[in-house]
Amino acid sequence: PRSTMEEPSGTHTKRKVVAVVGGGLVGSLNACYFAQRGFNVEVFETREDIRQAKIVRGRSINLALSHRGRQALKHVGMEEKIVSQGIPMHARMIHSLSGKQSPIPYGKKGQVNPSFSCLAEKYPNAKLNFDHKLQDWSPETGLMTFARSDGSTEHIEADLIVGCDGAFSAIRKQFLRRSRFNYSQTYIPHGYMELTMPPIDGEFAMKPNYLHIWPRNTFMMIALPNLDKTFTCTLFMPFEEFEKITSGDEVMEFFQKYFPDTIPLIGPDALRRDYFRLPAQAMVSVKCSPYHIGDKCVLMGDAAHAVVPFYGQGMNAGFEDCIVFDEILNQFDEDLSAALPEYTRVRVPDDHAIADLAMYNYIEMRAHVNSKWFLFRKHVDNILHLLMPKTIIPLYTMVTFTRTRYHKAVERWHWQDKVKHKCFLSLSLSLSIYVIHRSKQ
Amino acid sequence: PRSTMEEPSGTHTKRKVVAVVGGGLVGSLNACYFAQRGFNVEVFETREDIRQAKIVRGRSINLALSHRGRQALKHVGMEEKIVSQGIPMHARMIHSLSGKQSPIPYGKKGQVNPSFSCLAEKYPNAKLNFDHKLQDWSPETGLMTFARSDGSTEHIEADLIVGCDGAFSAIRKQFLRRSRFNYSQTYIPHGYMELTMPPIDGEFAMKPNYLHIWPRNTFMMIALPNLDKTFTCTLFMPFEEFEKITSGDEVMEFFQKYFPDTIPLIGPDALRRDYFRLPAQAMVSVKCSPYHIGDKCVLMGDAAHAVVPFYGQGMNAGFEDCIVFDEILNQFDEDLSAALPEYTRVRVPDDHAIADLAMYNYIEMRAHVNSKWFLFRKHVDNILHLLMPKTIIPLYTMVTFTRTRYHKAVERWHWQDKVKHKCFLSLSLSLSIYVIHRSKQ
Repeated sequence: PRSTMEEPSGTHTKRKVVAVVGGGLVGSLNACYFAQRGFNVEVFETREDIRQAKIVRGRSINLALSHRGRQALKHVGMEEKIVSQGIPMHARMIHSLSGKQSPIPYGKKGQVNPSFSCLAEKYPNAKLNFDHKLQDWSPETGLMTFARSDGSTEHIEADLIVGCDGAFSAIRKQFLRRSRFNYSQTYIPHGYMELTMPPIDGEFAMKPNYLHIWPRNTFMMIALPNLDKTFTCTLFMPFEEFEKITSGDEVMEFFQKYFPDTIPLIGPDALRRDYFRLPAQAMVSVKCSPYHIGDKCVLMGDAAHAVVPFYGQGMNAGFEDCIVFDEILNQFDEDLSAALPEYTRVRVPDDHAIADLAMYNYIEMRAHVNSKWFLFRKHVDNILHLLMPKTIIPLYTMVTFTRTRYHKAVERWHWQDKVKHKCFLSLSLSLSIYVIHRSKQ
Repeated sequence: PRSTMEEPSGTHTKRKVVAVVGGGLVGSLNACYFAQRGFNVEVFETREDIRQAKIVRGRSINLALSHRGRQALKHVGMEEKIVSQGIPMHARMIHSLSGKQSPIPYGKKGQVNPSFSCLAEKYPNAKLNFDHKLQDWSPETGLMTFARSDGSTEHIEADLIVGCDGAFSAIRKQFLRRSRFNYSQTYIPHGYMELTMPPIDGEFAMKPNYLHIWPRNTFMMIALPNLDKTFTCTLFMPFEEFEKITSGDEVMEFFQKYFPDTIPLIGPDALRRDYFRLPAQAMVSVKCSPYHIGDKCVLMGDAAHAVVPFYGQGMNAGFEDCIVFDEILNQFDEDLSAALPEYTRVRVPDDHAIADLAMYNYIEMRAHVNSKWFLFRKHVDNILHLLMPKTIIPLYTMVTFTRTRYHKAVERWHWQDKVKHKCFLSLSLSLSIYVIHRSKQ
């Protein structure tokens, strides 16, 4: 048993001990925020030292950094470092069935290397603890027990426990046992599978700096560049379609039919083999409320709000959590008994909004992308934005390129739709009356 | 360890063993259905023998039996017996703030005595096991372990495990650990508290055969008669309002202000005391999918779909589960590997529809009941139903007095609304054109 109390308790100079459970993206960034604030930070990660670990292929969805994420990184002086490590992406590249490629530009985006937990180490008051699996903890006392792979256990007492342990959070399980905790987990009918496209003669097999997309109605594939000149291709498809393909020949037949241009790039042998390496992975949307218990525990990142990956905001929302909590700690002078309820009050509607938007995009992408009416409306939106840049702002812009609160962005989007609808109605009505009037003269 | 296998395994005449977990309303009715079918039925209930137990006051919401529930009881020959035990209710009685009472009639409804588990005992092939707490079970093998209060354990192997163990189901926890299980639990901001109104001179203190209602905007009280001539009064109110009342004097002040006519009937001393006996109880809405794992386990009743009590359909939906599963077993000749997925496919949309309707009613009751526009629309609905009884059917009628599938009732309701909206629009448009036309002449 070890204690993290370094100073005699009861003194006013005692630094708060924050235990961050989970050393992934949001946990690591949070550690930096708390360390910068002068708290004693202990990060606990179940896995062995992930700084040296190879990235597990086939189970990670590539992550795009947009405005919110960059702002959150900037606040702890990490923006430039992270952005320079990633590959900037300036456009989408659409691959048609015939192999034709057409770029669709969009604003600046970058990618993030999914393990940067080492960055918290620049703070002397932050400590990374790997191989620490949470066994038990109490939201009342802040006491936690961790199991280590050598069979030993370790006890820690924290002033604040921050659950950043992802979509299947162990911290959240304790919340579920309490009354009046609202919770939902929704799996979508689609699964995803990752395939690697190797470099050709030491160079990227396709143009880097693009998000490559093969849209195919009910399913699609995307590809994102990695620093080692490979591409990670992600195939999104209903589970029942994945299950229909049971042999190497069926894999080839399927790719020949829908993604013929990728076969030589991935390699037919690798394709036959890698398709069966791991089953298709599920995607879950998690919403819950409240995010805190008492004044000692709070959930952030995927532990609080896992989203489906169709708005590219999962990581950005998690990073924004850190900055929002930081602002609230300032506002309440680090009084946790006031800050935690306020964090729930402020953040829940925004996280629910982005979770709903991601789900909406998932449905919309499949249902509307090929409809002429949908494309026409998108077109009208863009024209209106050009004519009235301060009144009509496309939802995507508000979400991706600003820090407008997610739920405010959605409200504004609905309001804009109403305005457009009313303009359209009055226009048609005026026209009808005019026509009737003319015909009478 | 005991085995329920009575006949040598492997023979074709072996009767299926069904373990019903939970001896409440739905579990007991289900036991009758499976017993009637000739299965060997074992019901397992955590509590001591609930046939002799006193009903726990303060924690049960009164239950009204409507068409669906009656049909389900009828199928196992229990309708008359149950209905004769209850108190028929023919109308609502609205209590205004001034104490004025006005009846609003509605169709036949009755109440159900919440413990009728003994009824399954009329079947020789059904066995009730009390004091059996589920400890562990496997959806793959059908093996279950139960703990008894004397410290012993019992092992059972079942062909089918039916989870009827209520809104906080232990069986459902196993579902939650599996991938691709969709689940949501939503607590509403209101809590409820039960108070008893004793008989006066051996007679009911208010008119029996009525559902007494005290509507008071954001909160309300209802009272339902019991066989022992008492009334159970249930106060529904936001938790924050409950928490504001902390002393006997504040209770009296509150009742004096909002429910003055009930003070002499409940009794001022009882009121001061009973308000603090138990904290206000939470109400949860649970939705999930699928309802089955493999061919060995299925959820029914509140374990599958707890609803908030504002449509009076919770018990009725649970009873209807039994009849729907029975119909599917007939359809698939008792092949569980086909019947269980079909049950999920058929029943999930209906249960989700009634859960949503109950939630919608909760919101509507508070927001609209006092609005003139809402009352006007209800009135128009009833007139339209009289004019076109087969085309426009009020939602409440479809839900309460028919076995129209819940989700079909909702679809039809939306369709009717569209039709009404369109009629209204064309009417206004024709009128406008007529007026313009006249003004030109």
